[in-house]
Amino acid sequence: MKVAFSLARRGLGNVWPNPAVGCIIVKNGRIVGRGWTQPGGRPHAEAMALKQAGKKAAGSTAYVNLEPCNHTGKSPPCTEALIEAGIKEIYGSLLDPDPRVSGTGFERLKKAELQVNIGLLSETAREINEGFFLRINEGRPFLTFKTATTIDGKIATKNGESNGITGKEARSFTHLLRSTHDATLVGSGTALADNPDLTSRLPGVDNKRRPRIILDRGLRLPLDSRLVMSAKEAPVWLITRNDHPPSKLQIYKDLYIDLILMPPGDTGQSDIVSAMQQLGSRGLTRILVEGGNHVASSLFAADLIDQLVWFRAPKILGNGALSAIGNLNIDKLSEMPIFVRQLSTNIGKDFLEILSRSR
Amino acid sequence: MKVAFSLARRGLGNVWPNPAVGCIIVKNGRIVGRGWTQPGGRPHAEAMALKQAGKKAAGSTAYVNLEPCNHTGKSPPCTEALIEAGIKEIYGSLLDPDPRVSGTGFERLKKAELQVNIGLLSETAREINEGFFLRINEGRPFLTFKTATTIDGKIATKNGESNGITGKEARSFTHLLRSTHDATLVGSGTALADNPDLTSRLPGVDNKRRPRIILDRGLRLPLDSRLVMSAKEAPVWLITRNDHPPSKLQIYKDLYIDLILMPPGDTGQSDIVSAMQQLGSRGLTRILVEGGNHVASSLFAADLIDQLVWFRAPKILGNGALSAIGNLNIDKLSEMPIFVRQLSTNIGKDFLEILSRSR
Repeated sequence: MKVAFSLARRGLGNVWPNPAVGCIIVKNGRIVGRGWTQPGGRPHAEAMALKQAGKKAAGSTAYVNLEPCNHTGKSPPCTEALIEAGIKEIYGSLLDPDPRVSGTGFERLKKAELQVNIGLLSETAREINEGFFLRINEGRPFLTFKTATTIDGKIATKNGESNGITGKEARSFTHLLRSTHDATLVGSGTALADNPDLTSRLPGVDNKRRPRIILDRGLRLPLDSRLVMSAKEAPVWLITRNDHPPSKLQIYKDLYIDLILMPPGDTGQSDIVSAMQQLGSRGLTRILVEGGNHVASSLFAADLIDQLVWFRAPKILGNGALSAIGNLNIDKLSEMPIFVRQLSTNIGKDFLEILSRSR
Repeated sequence: MKVAFSLARRGLGNVWPNPAVGCIIVKNGRIVGRGWTQPGGRPHAEAMALKQAGKKAAGSTAYVNLEPCNHTGKSPPCTEALIEAGIKEIYGSLLDPDPRVSGTGFERLKKAELQVNIGLLSETAREINEGFFLRINEGRPFLTFKTATTIDGKIATKNGESNGITGKEARSFTHLLRSTHDATLVGSGTALADNPDLTSRLPGVDNKRRPRIILDRGLRLPLDSRLVMSAKEAPVWLITRNDHPPSKLQIYKDLYIDLILMPPGDTGQSDIVSAMQQLGSRGLTRILVEGGNHVASSLFAADLIDQLVWFRAPKILGNGALSAIGNLNIDKLSEMPIFVRQLSTNIGKDFLEILSRSR
């Protein structure tokens, strides 16, 4: 099953709106087929593994981290394919939360007299597809907040100088993070200050399906920014108010920007929650939030951050410098969000900590 | 030699103004004598080890982390004692930087035809007595800054609520830290906000030789504070301006407070540097700085912090909350002080990092 998990993880960042699934087919103690959900979600892991196994699938055992699909969507259901191939036994970690599947996949396999074992390593299986589960159950994507600070939590001098607080190893890791998330999100402040392109510059990574998302209520994103200039090659989604002059919105549209229009609203949390719902309804399951300060504070205040990836350089900037997270108006310590440390390690001269929200 | 080091470390926090020394006497591959500098600095490690070895010292080898003393102070020189006991060979890591000794101790032993080996594991030996070396060479003590923050570097809500950001394991470790430093230092802000007593509440620890030091320019320390109330049992040193009304100063003196008077001065760095020189001239080699925000910023701004002990709770407070370190007026990232990570480990639900200043 652990092999299936590592195959499933290959899909993270590529398979949305689908879950990342891995499938292993074992016969007489040997692996005869391997598969994982392919970019865009098709073919499914089971179809890929069955194809590789060919005739050896008959009488074999399949391991899969999520219930096989049982509805005819873009392809015929995997349950049918598994039955036809003559699979004898299946280990599945979790039920698919999609109401079109949930339980019916395993039911069908049982009716076809396969031996069905549910629940193996279900906790890890759940972690892998936490984004997919959130999208199905709460309509919003899983959010990872990434930042790079000094020991005392600062991201830039008071003048905004920020380049090179952490080293090149942290930057490489950021490209890896982008590639395992469906999309990257920043605020217009970061887009203006850093003029990033937010693509993943790792060899072999395809950015064409990975939206760069900008929260830009004031429509401040410069038309000559790297993000706008590259919108034809890789998607840019701009979340802004719907009351800007239509002519102004049209300029962005003409430059291949995908506009997500929100009601002018009040300020704050309800806005950001409905923006995340919009992103969920577009199928996103995992978003990497790369700042800045204002986006961070609105997401933390609405308690939407599920994971922290915190790079920390062994340096001190002191107060007066810019903090990683804006004002949260937390009056009492008992109101603080609590995280759980998952991993901490040296990365170059810096330190990397990954923590997940404890809910 | 490593055994000698661990014996030496037992003295840290107890032996000032002396260095912490450990001594092992080995004969035929067996340890026949162990010693370390005793509280207050006497007897010396060598004297203690020789006494334990007794007649077995004849023809044996001694290991010691610092050059044996060669001047008659409160006791006769250790060189003489080693020669008289018939030690044949000695391994010493470092020369004593005290100008009354420096090199003459080893010279004398050589003249007495002992085989003298200098430099074994000298780097570790230097780390152990870094405070003593700083006091001798620069006239100031080694400063450890200890703080307990959220992930984003905050120590309290904007209303000042700070109790329980980190857990009880971090608090216990703080008592251990106090016991291995000669003194603890806070600003009057912390003394007012937290009313601490700054003693080390570990079994067997004697606080009578461990000054609690308060930087209190404005003479704000309340007369009914725990620090003032306990000044008769364990020393309280109060650093303040010399231009307060003598009658007001006398009240503190009558309550057993030891006043260190400074010229009114300007603000800032020259003041804090001369305050540290005063503490060095009183013999302190290692001071634990426990905040707050203002003391931290003046010590960091004057680049006097040699080591950080940073407890970090897996929680977020956001900007607007109180930062661990006040304003340092760092304009450029290139001006940031850089530290080197020595240790990082889980401590309860929190995280502990120890870093040393890279000079």
